[in-house]
Amino acid sequence: MRILITGAAGMVGRKLTARLAKDGTLAGQKITALDLHDIVPSDAFSMPSAHVSIHVGDLSDTAAVAGLIAARPDVIFHLAGIVSGEAEANFDLGYGVNLDSTRALFDAVRLENYQPRIVFTSSIAVFGAPFPDVIPDEFHPTPLTSYGTQKLMGEALLADYTRRGFFDGIGIRLPTICVRPGKPNKAASGFFSGIIREPLNGREAILPVPRSVVHTHASPRSAVGFLIHAAGIDGNKVGPRRNLSMPGVGVTVGEQIESLERIAGSDVVKHIREEPDQTIWRIVQGWPTRFEAKRALELGFTAESSFDDIIRVYIEDELQGGLLRA
Amino acid sequence: MRILITGAAGMVGRKLTARLAKDGTLAGQKITALDLHDIVPSDAFSMPSAHVSIHVGDLSDTAAVAGLIAARPDVIFHLAGIVSGEAEANFDLGYGVNLDSTRALFDAVRLENYQPRIVFTSSIAVFGAPFPDVIPDEFHPTPLTSYGTQKLMGEALLADYTRRGFFDGIGIRLPTICVRPGKPNKAASGFFSGIIREPLNGREAILPVPRSVVHTHASPRSAVGFLIHAAGIDGNKVGPRRNLSMPGVGVTVGEQIESLERIAGSDVVKHIREEPDQTIWRIVQGWPTRFEAKRALELGFTAESSFDDIIRVYIEDELQGGLLRA
Repeated sequence: MRILITGAAGMVGRKLTARLAKDGTLAGQKITALDLHDIVPSDAFSMPSAHVSIHVGDLSDTAAVAGLIAARPDVIFHLAGIVSGEAEANFDLGYGVNLDSTRALFDAVRLENYQPRIVFTSSIAVFGAPFPDVIPDEFHPTPLTSYGTQKLMGEALLADYTRRGFFDGIGIRLPTICVRPGKPNKAASGFFSGIIREPLNGREAILPVPRSVVHTHASPRSAVGFLIHAAGIDGNKVGPRRNLSMPGVGVTVGEQIESLERIAGSDVVKHIREEPDQTIWRIVQGWPTRFEAKRALELGFTAESSFDDIIRVYIEDELQGGLLRA
Repeated sequence: MRILITGAAGMVGRKLTARLAKDGTLAGQKITALDLHDIVPSDAFSMPSAHVSIHVGDLSDTAAVAGLIAARPDVIFHLAGIVSGEAEANFDLGYGVNLDSTRALFDAVRLENYQPRIVFTSSIAVFGAPFPDVIPDEFHPTPLTSYGTQKLMGEALLADYTRRGFFDGIGIRLPTICVRPGKPNKAASGFFSGIIREPLNGREAILPVPRSVVHTHASPRSAVGFLIHAAGIDGNKVGPRRNLSMPGVGVTVGEQIESLERIAGSDVVKHIREEPDQTIWRIVQGWPTRFEAKRALELGFTAESSFDDIIRVYIEDELQGGLLRA
């Protein structure tokens, strides 16, 4: 089986690559070739049984994309994208990458005419406030960002191209990925990870919103699990509605902090400093809180069942299983 | 006030033009210029108080579209599109006209930077089966045709461009327009009008589906009313969810025929011949039945309140108010 990953150098892309290398198989088939595409070079690595190729370029380069597709990857993980804040700040870049490059990739597959599985990472940003307490699978997507709009348009294309038989697509709407490893970033959602990651590493974290804020999270490990599961799922069971809200753990920020205290102790929690930020709070109030994710659960997608588990995944995967005590 | 209509030579475009010419005003302002654009020439006509220009061309001609927008129409009615059957049969044409030309028009307005009102005709084809008994405003759009997909993508762009302040857009999802004047066409939905129009004109009509089929209709006069109302509505009252399912009359085919009998007599109804067509029935089963249209009604959009009224509109507007008896 040949696999193509776009956006392979990103956080989820790297973790997916590592998981595929470890498994050696996908959907019960041996991986024989792995194409890693991104705008920057993916980390070099090798798999004993598979030919690994690292491709650097822009997905808007039609000829280059056609070249990748000419190799006929059986599964395409389309993770590449411009993040929310950047898509909002740079109109042309956001539409160019998130919409036009997605369409160009889909069209390259259409023209190659060989019906692979495509797994597309969409986002809960397709939804916009106001929301019911729990968002059902049938809730209408009314994005309040250009990023969410571009993801929604990608979802619509994926469903139509699948219906027409050009490929067999599954769109997965990722909840917020938590705990994100690495350095703090300027994303408005950054604090959801920051208040866990920074204290666990002995550093101060700022909490800019009230502890009553509710949000849904899944670990990076679960995100990779969603992708792997989507790659192997029976398309007939999915039916024509190809875009699925993924499950996650819906908790208040206060509950996140309680989890942290249970796992790492009260001294660690003291690294969280409350510093209300009206701008961030206003943005966060426009975000979805909880999802029903009924169809995804029925189709076998699984996430953590508690925020404690999400913290444990971070400790296992990023801290070599041990807590760093200050 | 300057007005631009795309798709001006179509059925709704012609009726909208006639209504604007009769009113002489739109949203309380005097019409001073009217630009009629279509791929074929619109019927020549004149308005005493306004400069009428007829433009023939393709909306994919970026320079021509920029020229139309350079005149800075205050209200743009974007009606142009490839119909459902043709968009399904011709993939490139459907995406080219319904998606790319819509985006090109929106981008021309964005680049002209003057924030006009744009009224975009979307369609209930953005929805796909299975449906609840009555489709609420918050129901998710999962189109089952390329046409519905393209309209959904146009809606998403309209909402995002409006949110970003490029223009002030209102998308209106038209129900099936009934009674369509003119000759029978090959659209799968053609019989909904055919079983009324043909008998009223002393001609046989084929009914290919069971009388129990439920569908929502609005007259061409109501469709024009929706457009006019959308042109003058206060955007602040609409809020960020800019795409609205329009109201209509939800009836069974049997109730349509009862209306016809009440208005035109039992002899007229005898022109309807039941000839089941499995292909058409299968298509029709994927169509929405009834809409709540709560937001549109609250915002002052109105349709007929009975199918009798819909037939009366046809008789008044197309048969000069009188029934033709065979």
